[in-house]
Amino acid sequence: MPQTQPARGMRDFLPEDVRRRHYVIDVVRRVYERYGFEPLETPALENIETLTGKYGDEGNKLIFKVLRRGEHEASGEADLALRYDLTVPLARVVAEHRGKLPRVFKRYQIQPVWRADRPARGRFREFYQCDVDAIGSTSPIVEVEMLSAVSDVLLGLGFDDFKIRINHRQLLTDVLLYAGIGHGDHTTALVALDKLDKIGADGVTRELLSRDIAPAAAQQFVAMMTHDMRLADVPAGRGAADELEEIFRLARGTSAERHLTFDPGLARGLSYYTGAIMEIAVSGIGSLGGGGRYDGLIGMFSSEAIPACGFSLGLERILVVMSERGMFPAEVNTSGPDVVLAFPDDTAAELVLRLATQLRAADLRVDVYPESTKQGKHLGKALKYASERKAAFVAIIEERELAANEVRLRNTTTREDVRMPQTELVQFLSAHAASSSSRPSGLAPRGPDSE
Amino acid sequence: MPQTQPARGMRDFLPEDVRRRHYVIDVVRRVYERYGFEPLETPALENIETLTGKYGDEGNKLIFKVLRRGEHEASGEADLALRYDLTVPLARVVAEHRGKLPRVFKRYQIQPVWRADRPARGRFREFYQCDVDAIGSTSPIVEVEMLSAVSDVLLGLGFDDFKIRINHRQLLTDVLLYAGIGHGDHTTALVALDKLDKIGADGVTRELLSRDIAPAAAQQFVAMMTHDMRLADVPAGRGAADELEEIFRLARGTSAERHLTFDPGLARGLSYYTGAIMEIAVSGIGSLGGGGRYDGLIGMFSSEAIPACGFSLGLERILVVMSERGMFPAEVNTSGPDVVLAFPDDTAAELVLRLATQLRAADLRVDVYPESTKQGKHLGKALKYASERKAAFVAIIEERELAANEVRLRNTTTREDVRMPQTELVQFLSAHAASSSSRPSGLAPRGPDSE
Repeated sequence: MPQTQPARGMRDFLPEDVRRRHYVIDVVRRVYERYGFEPLETPALENIETLTGKYGDEGNKLIFKVLRRGEHEASGEADLALRYDLTVPLARVVAEHRGKLPRVFKRYQIQPVWRADRPARGRFREFYQCDVDAIGSTSPIVEVEMLSAVSDVLLGLGFDDFKIRINHRQLLTDVLLYAGIGHGDHTTALVALDKLDKIGADGVTRELLSRDIAPAAAQQFVAMMTHDMRLADVPAGRGAADELEEIFRLARGTSAERHLTFDPGLARGLSYYTGAIMEIAVSGIGSLGGGGRYDGLIGMFSSEAIPACGFSLGLERILVVMSERGMFPAEVNTSGPDVVLAFPDDTAAELVLRLATQLRAADLRVDVYPESTKQGKHLGKALKYASERKAAFVAIIEERELAANEVRLRNTTTREDVRMPQTELVQFLSAHAASSSSRPSGLAPRGPDSE
Repeated sequence: MPQTQPARGMRDFLPEDVRRRHYVIDVVRRVYERYGFEPLETPALENIETLTGKYGDEGNKLIFKVLRRGEHEASGEADLALRYDLTVPLARVVAEHRGKLPRVFKRYQIQPVWRADRPARGRFREFYQCDVDAIGSTSPIVEVEMLSAVSDVLLGLGFDDFKIRINHRQLLTDVLLYAGIGHGDHTTALVALDKLDKIGADGVTRELLSRDIAPAAAQQFVAMMTHDMRLADVPAGRGAADELEEIFRLARGTSAERHLTFDPGLARGLSYYTGAIMEIAVSGIGSLGGGGRYDGLIGMFSSEAIPACGFSLGLERILVVMSERGMFPAEVNTSGPDVVLAFPDDTAAELVLRLATQLRAADLRVDVYPESTKQGKHLGKALKYASERKAAFVAIIEERELAANEVRLRNTTTREDVRMPQTELVQFLSAHAASSSSRPSGLAPRGPDSE
């Protein structure tokens, strides 16, 4: 038999998976729309030159490359590549469509990316990124709005035990210099610092020493990073500390206020950050996303310096944590139809389809079991089907109900039957659906943003 | 400068495009959910063996193939390929997850596919397919539910001038045989018949003759296909005609009834159909989608015969037609924020962010222009920005408003200003948003299906 598994590191999303994913994406979208961010989508395939050289040597190896077609296929050359992240396509779009975009372009983008990483638990070769970026302003308002939006997303999903750690790239540089570590060793030192959570202060010190950083400098640096440094204590280069203080001041009264915490040890690996850097920490889980200001990157295709600040939510991670913690609302978990209709024989099928039409006009989710229940043991099969589909009710019509224009409605949870005139079915099921459905508070849909 | 266009045949979707696409997809989803269909998503990349050999020689050439990675990259071999349609992945999923799926699996899938076709007007190399299929039942209820669902989608999008042409594959075979065209010539004859709309009856006859079909047979076949044949007139093989009559009978009282029309000349190119075939025709536009019963295909990965019936909506085509006809509701076209807030200087920024927080808590879409308006000519820039963003209002706060705890609210359409206490802003803007937003009738969201 042929292989029927998805390709290595890829996943099929069955209905329950899709519903959970869409639930999360929907919350993210609604919140970002509420903050004035606009949706962008770019093609899965980019010209290979657009991507190569943008992610370092390691990244280059992980890009999925697409073979040229037709007569060129035999050459083994690639001319296209699959999207590796959402930042390079954003930079390309900004360069290409600058004239059509508002002077401050606030976009969110929720699309899959592909990386030929070694698959591991929680690491896939196709996964969604969920990015929000504001392009074109250096104002700290941008950072604050982003922190507040991200907080609203997490609160909307039901997280309340999160912190957003914040630091500043320039402040790290200043502290490194103050401790006596020269510019040439900064990348090494930050890579070591990034492991603070994993290997502890002694581990970081050992790593710095092994990289030939002077013991006094290494010790001072680690001490400064690990003692309870406040922004007011920052020893040198007040510029960055002032920026962070402005962010804290402006965040008062926004939903970020309660969650924001200065963390002088936060480094974030990516070298392209130029200003504030931030990361979501949930107790016992680690990072659910991060971001920061990167004023040098978006101009890569336009030889312009374009300021930018962005945040990326770890959608796949969020989904795993929400599943483990049982954070999905009941209506996402039990998302079967409101009712499955079963009919005794072909002469009754037309009646049942008319009933289905009426129920759907009332916005109920209605499934018709397509085989007549009189043949064979199809009533049992219809009931089994309704249970597989997690339907709330089965509406059974047999001879007796046909004769009396009634319907026997079985509650699939309580297994109780209730008999009623067919004309009352819409009202009964609508009332039940209204009482069992609820939305996360504050996320009621309105108008076009409820897409 | 580097290339900044998307790859050949691919498109960037700017915010307005994305909103229109999501609006249509949202209507499709809601309707399909209401019919008990469930969402499925499969990976963009499949193992290459999963796809090769499934689409004929021509199709094979149009598949985007992905180069093996690492040390194998130099070999020029491909081991993965990009999804070419949604049917083969569905067949794979059914074989792989059979035990987890309900006995009748009704799924919809709305995802991009990739084909290395020559790009042309309206033909892209990345485009969305929008498929709905019911797997596991031979009941004509399945066809009727599908026809009714597709009608509801089109009605929900605002189309009312559509017909759904229906025919039956077996009926075509019967008529061909009756006219005296042998089995060996059926494919040729149906390919010719498929062009009836384009080349007319004479053209089809000429093409049949050029393929060495006997003149009497060719003439009789074309005559039968073009005179106003009713189902009752079908001369031979009543089985197929009876099936179609059953579909017509059951469709009474569903939303398909008004639109369904028997068309003996409908052939549909794909050879895998085995029963009813159907196609949406909108006057002056042509096909917006089609489908039918194909009982032989879904079992391709499982050596089982699994009955199936499906329908594919031409999403890209629908989008083009809706744009041309101006069918998008106002709130999709003018989907800017409800208000852009402008502030005079950094000391007022905190106040403005607090206001933004209050407005967002009322589910308003709020953008804060991030530069203070006192510096330079930023009030003019803020107003220009609000107009680029298609915001409904700009809330201007300058010294006078600051002193009086007021806000000056400019309607960007009428350019009129109205002054009000800051405390009344939420109520005013909520009332305006409620009065200007509306949803297509019958598509009000409820519970989890409003994803």
